[in-house]
Amino acid sequence: MIATAAAPDAVPMAFDMRDWAQNASPHSASAIEFNARQVRLTWGDGRRSVFHAVWLRDNCACSECKHPKALERTYMFLDHAAPEVVSAQAVEGSGLVVEFMQGKNRHTARFTWGWLRNHCYGSTALAERKPARHLWDSQHSQELTVVDFNDYFTTDRGLNAWIDALFRNGIVLLRGVPTEPGKLIEVANRIGPVRPSNFGEYYDVVSMPNPNAVAYTSLGLELHTDLANWRFPPDFQMLCCLQNSVVGGESIFADGFRVAEDLRRQDPYSFKILCTHPLTFRFQDNSCDIETDAATLDVDSSGALTRIRFNNWLRSAMQLPAEMTEPMYAALAALWKLLRDKKYHLTTRLSAGELITYDNSRILHGRVGFDANTGDRHLQGCYMNREDVASRQRLLEREM
Amino acid sequence: MIATAAAPDAVPMAFDMRDWAQNASPHSASAIEFNARQVRLTWGDGRRSVFHAVWLRDNCACSECKHPKALERTYMFLDHAAPEVVSAQAVEGSGLVVEFMQGKNRHTARFTWGWLRNHCYGSTALAERKPARHLWDSQHSQELTVVDFNDYFTTDRGLNAWIDALFRNGIVLLRGVPTEPGKLIEVANRIGPVRPSNFGEYYDVVSMPNPNAVAYTSLGLELHTDLANWRFPPDFQMLCCLQNSVVGGESIFADGFRVAEDLRRQDPYSFKILCTHPLTFRFQDNSCDIETDAATLDVDSSGALTRIRFNNWLRSAMQLPAEMTEPMYAALAALWKLLRDKKYHLTTRLSAGELITYDNSRILHGRVGFDANTGDRHLQGCYMNREDVASRQRLLEREM
Repeated sequence: MIATAAAPDAVPMAFDMRDWAQNASPHSASAIEFNARQVRLTWGDGRRSVFHAVWLRDNCACSECKHPKALERTYMFLDHAAPEVVSAQAVEGSGLVVEFMQGKNRHTARFTWGWLRNHCYGSTALAERKPARHLWDSQHSQELTVVDFNDYFTTDRGLNAWIDALFRNGIVLLRGVPTEPGKLIEVANRIGPVRPSNFGEYYDVVSMPNPNAVAYTSLGLELHTDLANWRFPPDFQMLCCLQNSVVGGESIFADGFRVAEDLRRQDPYSFKILCTHPLTFRFQDNSCDIETDAATLDVDSSGALTRIRFNNWLRSAMQLPAEMTEPMYAALAALWKLLRDKKYHLTTRLSAGELITYDNSRILHGRVGFDANTGDRHLQGCYMNREDVASRQRLLEREM
Repeated sequence: MIATAAAPDAVPMAFDMRDWAQNASPHSASAIEFNARQVRLTWGDGRRSVFHAVWLRDNCACSECKHPKALERTYMFLDHAAPEVVSAQAVEGSGLVVEFMQGKNRHTARFTWGWLRNHCYGSTALAERKPARHLWDSQHSQELTVVDFNDYFTTDRGLNAWIDALFRNGIVLLRGVPTEPGKLIEVANRIGPVRPSNFGEYYDVVSMPNPNAVAYTSLGLELHTDLANWRFPPDFQMLCCLQNSVVGGESIFADGFRVAEDLRRQDPYSFKILCTHPLTFRFQDNSCDIETDAATLDVDSSGALTRIRFNNWLRSAMQLPAEMTEPMYAALAALWKLLRDKKYHLTTRLSAGELITYDNSRILHGRVGFDANTGDRHLQGCYMNREDVASRQRLLEREM
C-alpha cells in the first residue's frame, strides 16, 4: 500500500527535523504499509525498514515535541497513552506523514526520507553504521597515514583525512608542524579543547641529567597506555617532536585491539579474566593520589573491545579474591608476552616537526632506550576526548 | 611456625613501602606459615591472610623494584622466573621479610604489617574495604548532611565530613557560602580542579524573559542526570544558589541507585534491558554535536550499580535491533514511573548562600516550576571528577 497526499493544513511545517545534521539521502520509499503498531517502508533500492509506532511518535520533531531552539526532546512518552498509527502516507517532495491516536488525542508527525533512512534500525543498517576499524600489525609502518600540517590546518579535506585515519587505524602522523613549544595545543584546538590532566594542559618529555621519573630518563619504556589510574583515561594522545638528534629513542606502537583479539582466539580463558576482574592502578606524588580499579580489557554488550588498559608502572597491589590471584598473573603474562611480539610493533623514529596522535584506549606506546650524550630529544604531549574529535567530524559533515 | 630475626644486612632498608599513605595498623602477625607458593599469616586479632608468592614478589618495594622517587613499579614479573618462597619471617619492630628464589636468583622483600593488613585480599578484608553507601528515599530530607562553609573551607574535619557524606549519600549541602558569582570555583578548588565541559568551566542557571533553552525557563524540570551524551558524564555536580526569591523553584533529588535496586527486585527483565542495551544521547548546537551510545544502568562485574544515566531531552532516536525497540520503551517507562514516585524524592528549597553537591552518576536532579514574576532565581553550576575528590580524601588521610 502506498499513499501520497498533500500535507494536511493543520500540520506545522517541520520537515527539517530540527537537526543540524544534513540527513541527506538519495533514497525514498516506494511502498508504505502500516498497522496500529508499525510502519513498514520499502525503499527505492529494495531495503525494507520497520518503524514502531512508539518509536515514530517519540521522534516527532514538531515544535510541541522538540524544542525549536534547544533542539531537545520535550515530548515525554510517559505522559501519553500508547500511540496507534491511524495513517501513514508519503507527501510529495517532503517525506512520511504519520497520524497517531493516543487515547482520545490525535497527533501528526512528519519525517524526511533522509532522516528515516539515517535512523532506520534494521540489522543491515545498524551493521553499516558501525565505525570501520582497521586492526593492524607491524606491516602498518608502511601504511601509516601521513597528513601535511598545512592541509590539516587550512583545509577541511586535510582535517577530515586526519580524523578518519585516527578513528579507523587508531594512529595518524602529522608532518611539517612548526617546532615551537606549545604548538601542539594549536594543533589540538583546530579540533576542540584539550583534556587537562594532573600533568597539566600539556607536558614535556625530555631526558634530564638528573631525572626524577622514569619517563625523564633515557631508558627504554615498555609498551603501555597512559593514565591507567583513571576510570576513563584520556582517549587520544598527541606527541609532538621538537628535537630528536639522539642515537636511539625510536617510538614503538602496537594495536592493542589486534593483540587482544589474538589473545581471545588463542587463550579465551585469559581474555575472559582480563575482561571481568579489575586491577588496581595508582599514581601518587606530593599533590595527588589517584587510584582506580579497572579491567585490563573492556568489551561492550556485543563483546566488541572498547578499551585496553596496560601500565606496569601504575599497576598497584592486586585486590582480587585469593583464588583469582595466580590466574590473573598468568592472564596478564599471556597478554604481555603477545604485546612484546615484534610482529605487532610499528616502530618509527619521530623527527622534529612530526606530531603523532593515537588512541590511548586502543594503541599502546613505548620507546627504545637512547644515548642522551649523543644529542637532544624533546617531545611535548597532550590529550583529547573522543567526543570532541567526533563532534568536529560531524561539524565538517554539516558543510559537505 | 613463627620466626623473628634481625633484618639481614644485605637488604636495603625500605620499610616505608615507598608509599605516601600511612598504612597504619595496630595489627601484626602472631603466626607465619609458608610454602613455595604462599605465605599465610595469622594476625593478632585472629584474622588469617594468604599472600601468594607471585603477589608478594610483584609488590616488593625495594629500590630495584619500585622507583625510589617516582614510587612506580619498575619490577616486571614477565622478565623473571616464577618466584618460590624460601623463607618468611617476622623482623622485630619492622614487619615481614620474605626470601624468594627465581630460577638461580635470590631476592628479599620486606613488608610492613600495616601495608600487608591494608592490602590483604581475603574475602572479609575485601568486603570491609568496599565504600559504604547509604541508599536513601524521601526520608533523607531530614538526614541530609549539612556542612558549614567556614568548617569546609578552613578545617580538615569540615572538608572530610563533606567528602564522606558525598561518597556515602551521594549528596551534601554547604551553608553560608558567600553569594559572589564564581565563588563555587573556589569551593571546588579547595578539593581540586573543576571538570570543564562544552558549557564552560561553570555556567549560570537563570530564568530569562526570552529563554533560548528549557533550562533557562521557569518550567519544571523532570528528574535527570547531566551530560548523558558523554560516555563519562561528570561525576559530581555543584549548584550554588546566589538568589532565590521566587515562588516555587524547589529542587528535587532522587537516589537513582535506590530506585534502580527497587526496579531490579520488582522487574528484573526491565532492569536487565536497561543494563545491556544502549540508548543514544546527543547534544547539538552551532558549535558542537556530541553523541554517545550508552546504557541507562551500568553495573560492575559483581552486579553492583556504578551509574544511572537518564535524560529525556538529550535522548536521541533509539538504534536498537527491531525486536528490542518496544521492550526498551517498556523498560524505560518502568524506571521512569518509579523515578516519579514521591516516596523517593528529596525536595528542598535552595536559599542564597547554599551550595548543593551531588553524584551525577547516581543522584537525579530536577526542579519544580516557578513564577519568574515573583522574584529572582540565580544558580551557578560546575562539575568535578570523582578521582580528584577521592585523591583529596587520601591527602587528608596522610596527615591524620
